[in-house]
Amino acid sequence: MSGLLWQKPGVAVDAQIQRFLAGDDVILDREFFLHDIAASRAHAEGLQRIGMLGADELEGLRRELAHLAEDFRSGTFVLDGRYEDGHSAIEARLTERLGDAGRKIHTGRSRNDQVLVATRLWLKEKLARVASLSREIAGVALDRAQAERHLPMPGYTHIQRAVVSSAGMWWAGWAEAFIDDAVRAADTFALIDCNPLGTAAGYGVNLRLDRDHTTAALGFSRLQVSPVYAQLSRGKFELAALEALGSATLDLRRLAWDLSLFTSAEFGFVALPAQYTTGSSIMPNKRNPDVIELMRATHASVAAARTEIEQLLSLPSGYHRDLQASKGAIFHGFGRGLAALELLPALLANLEWREERLRAAIDSGMYATDVAVDAAIAGVPFRDAYRAAAASSDSAGQGRTPEGSLAARTSPGAAVDLRLDVLRERLARAS
Amino acid sequence: MSGLLWQKPGVAVDAQIQRFLAGDDVILDREFFLHDIAASRAHAEGLQRIGMLGADELEGLRRELAHLAEDFRSGTFVLDGRYEDGHSAIEARLTERLGDAGRKIHTGRSRNDQVLVATRLWLKEKLARVASLSREIAGVALDRAQAERHLPMPGYTHIQRAVVSSAGMWWAGWAEAFIDDAVRAADTFALIDCNPLGTAAGYGVNLRLDRDHTTAALGFSRLQVSPVYAQLSRGKFELAALEALGSATLDLRRLAWDLSLFTSAEFGFVALPAQYTTGSSIMPNKRNPDVIELMRATHASVAAARTEIEQLLSLPSGYHRDLQASKGAIFHGFGRGLAALELLPALLANLEWREERLRAAIDSGMYATDVAVDAAIAGVPFRDAYRAAAASSDSAGQGRTPEGSLAARTSPGAAVDLRLDVLRERLARAS
Amino acid sequence: MSGLLWQKPGVAVDAQIQRFLAGDDVILDREFFLHDIAASRAHAEGLQRIGMLGADELEGLRRELAHLAEDFRSGTFVLDGRYEDGHSAIEARLTERLGDAGRKIHTGRSRNDQVLVATRLWLKEKLARVASLSREIAGVALDRAQAERHLPMPGYTHIQRAVVSSAGMWWAGWAEAFIDDAVRAADTFALIDCNPLGTAAGYGVNLRLDRDHTTAALGFSRLQVSPVYAQLSRGKFELAALEALGSATLDLRRLAWDLSLFTSAEFGFVALPAQYTTGSSIMPNKRNPDVIELMRATHASVAAARTEIEQLLSLPSGYHRDLQASKGAIFHGFGRGLAALELLPALLANLEWREERLRAAIDSGMYATDVAVDAAIAGVPFRDAYRAAAASSDSAGQGRTPEGSLAARTSPGAAVDLRLDVLRERLARAS
Amino acid sequence: MSGLLWQKPGVAVDAQIQRFLAGDDVILDREFFLHDIAASRAHAEGLQRIGMLGADELEGLRRELAHLAEDFRSGTFVLDGRYEDGHSAIEARLTERLGDAGRKIHTGRSRNDQVLVATRLWLKEKLARVASLSREIAGVALDRAQAERHLPMPGYTHIQRAVVSSAGMWWAGWAEAFIDDAVRAADTFALIDCNPLGTAAGYGVNLRLDRDHTTAALGFSRLQVSPVYAQLSRGKFELAALEALGSATLDLRRLAWDLSLFTSAEFGFVALPAQYTTGSSIMPNKRNPDVIELMRATHASVAAARTEIEQLLSLPSGYHRDLQASKGAIFHGFGRGLAALELLPALLANLEWREERLRAAIDSGMYATDVAVDAAIAGVPFRDAYRAAAASSDSAGQGRTPEGSLAARTSPGAAVDLRLDVLRERLARAS
Repeated sequence: MSGLLWQKPGVAVDAQIQRFLAGDDVILDREFFLHDIAASRAHAEGLQRIGMLGADELEGLRRELAHLAEDFRSGTFVLDGRYEDGHSAIEARLTERLGDAGRKIHTGRSRNDQVLVATRLWLKEKLARVASLSREIAGVALDRAQAERHLPMPGYTHIQRAVVSSAGMWWAGWAEAFIDDAVRAADTFALIDCNPLGTAAGYGVNLRLDRDHTTAALGFSRLQVSPVYAQLSRGKFELAALEALGSATLDLRRLAWDLSLFTSAEFGFVALPAQYTTGSSIMPNKRNPDVIELMRATHASVAAARTEIEQLLSLPSGYHRDLQASKGAIFHGFGRGLAALELLPALLANLEWREERLRAAIDSGMYATDVAVDAAIAGVPFRDAYRAAAASSDSAGQGRTPEGSLAARTSPGAAVDLRLDVLRERLARAS
Repeated sequence: MSGLLWQKPGVAVDAQIQRFLAGDDVILDREFFLHDIAASRAHAEGLQRIGMLGADELEGLRRELAHLAEDFRSGTFVLDGRYEDGHSAIEARLTERLGDAGRKIHTGRSRNDQVLVATRLWLKEKLARVASLSREIAGVALDRAQAERHLPMPGYTHIQRAVVSSAGMWWAGWAEAFIDDAVRAADTFALIDCNPLGTAAGYGVNLRLDRDHTTAALGFSRLQVSPVYAQLSRGKFELAALEALGSATLDLRRLAWDLSLFTSAEFGFVALPAQYTTGSSIMPNKRNPDVIELMRATHASVAAARTEIEQLLSLPSGYHRDLQASKGAIFHGFGRGLAALELLPALLANLEWREERLRAAIDSGMYATDVAVDAAIAGVPFRDAYRAAAASSDSAGQGRTPEGSLAARTSPGAAVDLRLDVLRERLARAS
Repeated sequence: MSGLLWQKPGVAVDAQIQRFLAGDDVILDREFFLHDIAASRAHAEGLQRIGMLGADELEGLRRELAHLAEDFRSGTFVLDGRYEDGHSAIEARLTERLGDAGRKIHTGRSRNDQVLVATRLWLKEKLARVASLSREIAGVALDRAQAERHLPMPGYTHIQRAVVSSAGMWWAGWAEAFIDDAVRAADTFALIDCNPLGTAAGYGVNLRLDRDHTTAALGFSRLQVSPVYAQLSRGKFELAALEALGSATLDLRRLAWDLSLFTSAEFGFVALPAQYTTGSSIMPNKRNPDVIELMRATHASVAAARTEIEQLLSLPSGYHRDLQASKGAIFHGFGRGLAALELLPALLANLEWREERLRAAIDSGMYATDVAVDAAIAGVPFRDAYRAAAASSDSAGQGRTPEGSLAARTSPGAAVDLRLDVLRERLARAS
Repeated sequence: MSGLLWQKPGVAVDAQIQRFLAGDDVILDREFFLHDIAASRAHAEGLQRIGMLGADELEGLRRELAHLAEDFRSGTFVLDGRYEDGHSAIEARLTERLGDAGRKIHTGRSRNDQVLVATRLWLKEKLARVASLSREIAGVALDRAQAERHLPMPGYTHIQRAVVSSAGMWWAGWAEAFIDDAVRAADTFALIDCNPLGTAAGYGVNLRLDRDHTTAALGFSRLQVSPVYAQLSRGKFELAALEALGSATLDLRRLAWDLSLFTSAEFGFVALPAQYTTGSSIMPNKRNPDVIELMRATHASVAAARTEIEQLLSLPSGYHRDLQASKGAIFHGFGRGLAALELLPALLANLEWREERLRAAIDSGMYATDVAVDAAIAGVPFRDAYRAAAASSDSAGQGRTPEGSLAARTSPGAAVDLRLDVLRERLARAS
């Protein structure tokens, strides 16, 4: 790594220390690089608008930034340990190609607001993906809820058989869960959709930067006004984004638990297409639902990313190098989280119920609540009806059927009245 | 604890096990008790509307619920270990006073949706408080930003003197931070503002419950449609609420860090009114900023509450007793979090700057960025200007003043152009 | 709360601030109170040995400390909001009863080392309990492993049937787990078994305190030498203790998961005595394994306590009031953790296997590994044998029995050779 | 990725699913590869000892394993996405080079115990490094404590000046801290120093494997007896190792906080050699202590790794694919943690005190405790002496000097009596 931007003559450089400082930072910057280039272009345009760059200088910068983006995408330009970070790499390239125009690009800008704006653009992209995947998952669930609204299924509490339920109710539950996750991702997107570029090192700068231009050019909905807050939002916004993602991956964890049980031999409710399973290196008989297990494990990675950032943020205001560790954390959390969510729509669309197993798991005790409520309808105070049903819980359900139980489940949201239309409407508004 | 609702004859009860099962649950239920009573009234009204209760029965239930609330508030009724939980206590009281009407109150209801609705009402109340306190804090900060916009203050990065800043910029930063916290609390309020009552044990019930009535009567903005999702949202909504609170307490942690440094002898920027400090048991000379330190510590309690719930939520769908531990967690997190936020507006309004110390901490090197940007304005490419300023950083700032530096800080959001009006407007919309 | 030890005349006291400062601190101090009294006695003895107290003064202090302990145990003395904390309460009582001798008790001591020593004694007591319970659990598991070494049981990976296992192997696994937990608790006990008393506020004091006496009198195995480290160990030792506890509660979480599945209708391997289950408020048919679920939830509380302390410890050296929050955290973590571990020996001793269900869950595919290894023994390279067994996995196991499979499981630690003697010996050494 | 070991004919493979399953697993396996090779050699030796391999087959396996290790070290062999994981790569290579002997290597072994043993060897190596670095750090601190025992330094509580301290006391505190960290790393090493190889998929195997041989050959101090526990220890041992590392990085976090404050302009107590600092991209005047800040941030990464694993471990017994995520977590935690600890001995050895700043920060109020204790020695009850000193705290210290204060600090462990010999002796025993 040569030519540190900030290096002063006469200061010895220790290789081990440099490695520690660098970490894998420049490699991580690859994730941000295109966003950094886009923001550099907007910054240059802003500088030109306030007279700090000539029209031809801007033209050159635009052209070379476009080339750099192209070279990066094609692999002609590799961002690696030859550079201190992505920011320095951009300035070095522009200076090499354009001379003074390159040396002017950093006017009124600090790496502090530069990394903030690149991170912000990256997070917006990822949150938009969380929202669209959550909507897609909810859509699949709603479709299957409609199609399978009459398929009986045992309902559990405490992993104990409780009352008759239906595949329709199960799907509708996940649909409403992921609609909420989509709403939350959208709320978080709106919260962080503000432009930090132009706040320099956290205290602004003695130049009337055209921040309104960069806000519009980069597609932000508003300015992040305060330079001090721009710095304070580092980590805070990353946490908010990870928490929105975590809302979806926590639902996924619970959904994967259902599927993990349902694909066991003992439950046997679900057959997974073979491509979702793997074999064992020693046990010839095994087909294991590894995809489901890795989905279940995903939230742990999101939680870890959250921990990493939260623990950093016990600091006074202003930038501190500690915050650099937040970069790898969001890549890890969103990398794992989105990879799992991406697979979910197809998995849900393709899983098959084994109806005979679902029916076989509905035993007569599961009608006891129906019996007690029926007695209550007939005028027996519920607590007395409950006691009577409890005393005869094995026999009370005789003659009842899953279909009959579901046909009487009339409370709003339950089997007879799933209100999928209400959920569909809310899903549409979450778009 | 006698008379467990669900107890069957002939099952021996082991005292140690009962204590373990009970934990401090019934004590914790005190927090929810009034909400539970309110929801019980709405549930009774709903039952009457579908013909499951007579008008006189409803009248009796309303009256006795009101009495119970009154007795609880006045201390005449004490919710303690004589009851399994608050839910059972309500039913027991109603049955004792009203006979059959009491035995009917639980018709079509489970403790599962009963605790959900009480928790939901409680969380809404607390989130509203987070939002209003955040707005109040932002309001104080905006007022002081306006008043102190010309007061110079050293700006730090890495806890190293960086550039001249102002009290106005510092306050505006915190203002924007807490506006975001208010927005987030409001978003979260909206997300969880849906009625779970009427979902029973997670699968609905064979009664056409009037859920629209209870939704309106309890002030919810919409129905939580799916019974399965009502159960899935247990813990999920608590987490979302704690995360919104945590956004504010994390800002508080950083603010408290600033004040902890600023009140040290070495910085000496801030004088705290004496009531915010305490003495030492052994060192006669000490006045310690304990209030600030306990504020800084607050986020740890919120984070702990979050951890407790997140770790529970690795479960299949449906209710599990594990979730009971989420109750104490939210009381702990919100108890600590709100106690700290409550004190903040007055503390911020009353802290005094020590101007001479602020000015003394501004050294000549802090003008170097101004110098470099001025050279850039004069046409020197910034990177060259930077190198020249670095080479002469001690002398370059000569003749410059804090006032002069601030007067030239024209980038939007910086000293000359704090845009407090933009922040005020956003604050107003967050209300 | 009157008579703050450190209060200076003329400083106004604000009630809300005082409540915030006090929190529930004095209530929490009840847990420490007897340890604080014991350490106060040792401190007084040390002061007398260096001539800072007369023999009669020491006599009086000993007597009144004994009375205070007695009064506290009997409930005659109640530690509550009338006192700032337990430390002040002790000094106040001694001064009230003894005059000058009471005013001398705090000579050379700070509340900082006072709370450290009380915490240390408390943690030692709790870690000893973790160790003894872990040993007890391991003992039950070893006994049942021996008794049930021939009981076949399906072995799972991925919650999928894998190979034949035995109750003996299952029990031996938990035995070795809890032996490790006992070792770890003992290691942690040894790590923190050092005396912080006599380090004052973190910098020692201008008195040749007899720290060797207090070390011996309080049963510490060594001195915590450095006053600076005594302060640095606050929180650090609490974390270490919670981590040792967490090692056991994490094993408990996995054990509870096994039992949660095994008590489901679908697995049906285990019958729990009725006192470990509870009923439902709405579903008359339910008996839920709540004890197991609350055991599974326990680790979340330990983890929360850990989080609370870890998040606090981003601080410079020296005491900070932030650390006060560590007190409630350890009470919460150990309170929940030990309550769950206390119930485990009896639960494990009393759970009953349902042998017919265990046998019914062993299907023919589960012999495929045996078949492949047998072929390997006969000279077929294992990978070829594996492929052959995979191709015929349903038929390959024909004629094999669970007993036969277990009788051939000869690898050390497996069914034929459980090596319980090795585990017993290690358990004995962990005592 | 072709030739999955466990693949069955006719099962379609989906590329996106395969990528999700693979993750970066094979890349991560590079960390373990040499340990996996070593364990494969030991396993082959064990197989030969029980007659499952001929002497020439063993010879071939030894030779090819040695070549593979050589090729891997030299870069001739690259472990990448062409392989499912490191385990498969080894078997594939051996089969390619040796035919049947390669196809026999997996006899009696599962990837489950294969990854366990490689992980165990890796963790032992890392814990040994934590222990040795902690000892080295303690050694530097002890040396400087001895050399600088007379250098006065202000002692702080609450980041407020409290009493006179010394560099000797400060260093001795860190020395004792890192001695404990070394002890803890050694305890944890001993806890996990047991051999899981030979437990197959968690239930042993129908072969009398020579586990005593592999235990000795791989340098383990004992057998991990139970196959069920071998699986249960996955994650548990990783957590224990990360917690031991975290004990050191948490101390580092607090030490870095001290240095972060001490290198600020306001404190100015410490000068760091220039190689530990970096510049700013916009502010020409800055030299920032980035190394210290990244050291402070390190614990967050260790904590994140811990979170990731702890959250996974809510599972029944037996192997689950979820556990795969624990691999990246330990690499991340130990990678960051050790990189920071590696730099610490030299940094501590090279930091320079600025004595005039240390002395200037000692103000007269800091003698108040000395004054009060002196009065107590003269017979005034301490509480009265405290009040008198508090009333005159500014004047009371007149005529006192830092040297005088330190010379009277006679409590064991304090300035006069640092007891470095006791610490040295404990350090020696920790080796």
